[in-house]
Amino acid sequence: MSTHATAATRPPSLEQAGYLVSIDQVDASSGAAIFALADEMARNLYEPATRQLMADCVVALLFFEPSSRTILSFSAAAARLGAGVISHQAAETSSLAKGESIEDTVRVVGSYADVIVMRHNEEGSAARAAEACPVPLINGGDGGNEHPTQALIDLYTIRNRLGRLDGLRVGMGFDPRHSRAIRSLCRGLARHPGNEVTLVGPRQLWMAEDDVQDLRGRGLTVAQSEDVEALLHQDVAYVNRFQRERIAALPDGDALGRLYRLSAGNVRSSGLQLILDPLPRTHEIDQDVDGLPQAGYFEQVRNGVPIRMALLSMLGRRDTTTTDS
Amino acid sequence: MSTHATAATRPPSLEQAGYLVSIDQVDASSGAAIFALADEMARNLYEPATRQLMADCVVALLFFEPSSRTILSFSAAAARLGAGVISHQAAETSSLAKGESIEDTVRVVGSYADVIVMRHNEEGSAARAAEACPVPLINGGDGGNEHPTQALIDLYTIRNRLGRLDGLRVGMGFDPRHSRAIRSLCRGLARHPGNEVTLVGPRQLWMAEDDVQDLRGRGLTVAQSEDVEALLHQDVAYVNRFQRERIAALPDGDALGRLYRLSAGNVRSSGLQLILDPLPRTHEIDQDVDGLPQAGYFEQVRNGVPIRMALLSMLGRRDTTTTDS
Amino acid sequence: MSTHATAATRPPSLEQAGYLVSIDQVDASSGAAIFALADEMARNLYEPATRQLMADCVVALLFFEPSSRTILSFSAAAARLGAGVISHQAAETSSLAKGESIEDTVRVVGSYADVIVMRHNEEGSAARAAEACPVPLINGGDGGNEHPTQALIDLYTIRNRLGRLDGLRVGMGFDPRHSRAIRSLCRGLARHPGNEVTLVGPRQLWMAEDDVQDLRGRGLTVAQSEDVEALLHQDVAYVNRFQRERIAALPDGDALGRLYRLSAGNVRSSGLQLILDPLPRTHEIDQDVDGLPQAGYFEQVRNGVPIRMALLSMLGRRDTTTTDS
Repeated sequence: MSTHATAATRPPSLEQAGYLVSIDQVDASSGAAIFALADEMARNLYEPATRQLMADCVVALLFFEPSSRTILSFSAAAARLGAGVISHQAAETSSLAKGESIEDTVRVVGSYADVIVMRHNEEGSAARAAEACPVPLINGGDGGNEHPTQALIDLYTIRNRLGRLDGLRVGMGFDPRHSRAIRSLCRGLARHPGNEVTLVGPRQLWMAEDDVQDLRGRGLTVAQSEDVEALLHQDVAYVNRFQRERIAALPDGDALGRLYRLSAGNVRSSGLQLILDPLPRTHEIDQDVDGLPQAGYFEQVRNGVPIRMALLSMLGRRDTTTTDS
Repeated sequence: MSTHATAATRPPSLEQAGYLVSIDQVDASSGAAIFALADEMARNLYEPATRQLMADCVVALLFFEPSSRTILSFSAAAARLGAGVISHQAAETSSLAKGESIEDTVRVVGSYADVIVMRHNEEGSAARAAEACPVPLINGGDGGNEHPTQALIDLYTIRNRLGRLDGLRVGMGFDPRHSRAIRSLCRGLARHPGNEVTLVGPRQLWMAEDDVQDLRGRGLTVAQSEDVEALLHQDVAYVNRFQRERIAALPDGDALGRLYRLSAGNVRSSGLQLILDPLPRTHEIDQDVDGLPQAGYFEQVRNGVPIRMALLSMLGRRDTTTTDS
Repeated sequence: MSTHATAATRPPSLEQAGYLVSIDQVDASSGAAIFALADEMARNLYEPATRQLMADCVVALLFFEPSSRTILSFSAAAARLGAGVISHQAAETSSLAKGESIEDTVRVVGSYADVIVMRHNEEGSAARAAEACPVPLINGGDGGNEHPTQALIDLYTIRNRLGRLDGLRVGMGFDPRHSRAIRSLCRGLARHPGNEVTLVGPRQLWMAEDDVQDLRGRGLTVAQSEDVEALLHQDVAYVNRFQRERIAALPDGDALGRLYRLSAGNVRSSGLQLILDPLPRTHEIDQDVDGLPQAGYFEQVRNGVPIRMALLSMLGRRDTTTTDS
């Protein structure tokens, strides 16, 4: 599997592979299966049978990049399924490394656990690790490349709110260039017909032309705009903060932050039906938006647990013949 | 709720609020209920029914300040109740923050977990977080302000050893100024009639005059003294180490440390019935005190688990109609 | 118990002591009992009865030195036994310390948990801690001194593969001087008759003469060699990387690393029956060795879980009258 998968080099499907490294592995049909299982997880979150589903499993969380939301959300998902959790969180220079290859690392951890969730700062590391790993592996983010579980949460929230995943106009901003969440979501939307994406942000944060061409090659209609107004004429606004930790220089960042944001005023006069944000939120959404019916970002974060329960359970359970809870 | 609650600005009771941010929320009657439940937890610590009490719950430990005892004690309490535990430990500058407000943080984590225990370096942060949090929140220490679960452990240990919480003479030292444990314990003692507190330590570590006045306003008799002997003429000695990490300058710290300490010699010739220490212990208690009948500090640390089990269970359980274990 | 136990100063047996600080506590007979229990654990890893064995227990992992494999392996073992896990990982200068003695630390943590696994950078700290600890303690590595659970994993893997633990020729390299794993394994092999050890590595990494004499005093035949070929004329090769974090100066480390390694070529032409490595692997084994029948290091890492389950269960379970799973 190539590091930068393109439309032409599709990785194996989720079912074939037994691991999840890219949203490209999830077509409309396997997406629907994941969402149906997530519905079931959400409905039975507190049922005793749910916490028996993975009671004989150990889930390893292997995070080589700082994380908090993703690791907490996966930990909660594993706990709700009754699994034991073992976790390692450290910068890549840490003890686990000591010069060891990523392949050896997952071989070792895969001999303790029944499924591994891995975050790594290196693009393509998830695919390499998944191939070597003796147990199923889920990509929790590999550098600027992919964040497939976030994309599934985003798609699930859109489906739940708007009832469909096709024929949508989705505005995304304000830092499309540095967001693996936006990259993965665009690829996911490309799997459904008739979707149009408008990327909005300061020109230096626009998506690289190669990436835009790749998305168009997948059948997605893509435009870019500097105008925050462009975001308001969509069905869905998917906004994120400027990823300052990845932006070499954004000299007028504070001024731009004041410009590129949604407020109750401009949301009320817009045609928006839904506002999402992968969080954390800083400048990009005013607090007075939280009370509007379009605000979907706290529902989105809540959806992280059933989606990750569905994925852990589909990939990590030992006996898939008794999946009925 | 004001950051520095005073006698005049009482926060809502534990039962009303559904969260615990201040010892001021616990009057004598709700204190007695907590202690009765802790008795039950201690008695049934290893009973299978006990680890069913929160088997359907996830407890989030959100520690933005270094901690070890408190987080280990809450982890153990949650495990004994059968709950899943998800935890985040980091300085405030960490990834979870990334400029996010404390309100957003607890909204996010409160969508993964059923109850949150939070420690934060900012005074008043617990009250702000509890108001925004979609699930019950327990204050595990907010800066120099409050540490209500520690105060409950201290009161519980006094009750168990001496059979009462009123009419007590309690000496506290040797760093009353920087101890949120002492502040919270004084407020707790003020809820019971006839208690007299003598604060003992080097003059630069005396409690601020405003704080002393506030305690007097609550009905507590308070004196301060530089003389370590003053501690020996009490019923209870509650001692702590100099909190050097919070003391800007204590030039003669080592010499003062040798002066301000309890030894088997002076304890034996005292009228003390009980010695407590929130630990860690450094200079303030000689090891030869450990074998004396007055030494209560290891019992005190052990009491942390049942008290925290009682609090997690009172505030965090989903179904309070089936509390009988 | 002295810090550097010698043949002359044997510590109490595992059964007598109720803790495990040194491989010297494990004679051939108690080793066999541990291995039999580990066999049972491996066989019943996914049985519901297995995760009831310690369902009423809390296991504390107290790691004052960086660790990843050992803590993940113990976490998995505890989870498989159904135990709750509380863990503290930090350099010794951390908050848990704050000047506290190791004895106080284990008294505190031992009042939360039913068994403690401790790693500490100070030689002999495990023995001191075990004496003060109110609950059983397992040494997860104390400085350069001992790593008894690793030695048991190594012996178990040799037993499983070769069917015996006596009359073996074992080559060990390439950093015998700095390896507590090699030290503990040698002591373990000395408990069985007829074993011969050949230590191989650059002269500056040879084992100190005192340590060699001690091993000979225990009945082990010990030779040292600079010649990597010496490793190939053995039954078992136990190799480790240069422990660069403990080596003050190894100026030609990279060149030596290329010299001191096993490749498929030299393994195929050797008399070796088994190759072990405590991992992580860097220079010492080429990847093309992984597919050879002699490669036992990933089986070795997998054996960590049942061995640690056996130890936790033997030492930490509350009721040993119902051990049958």
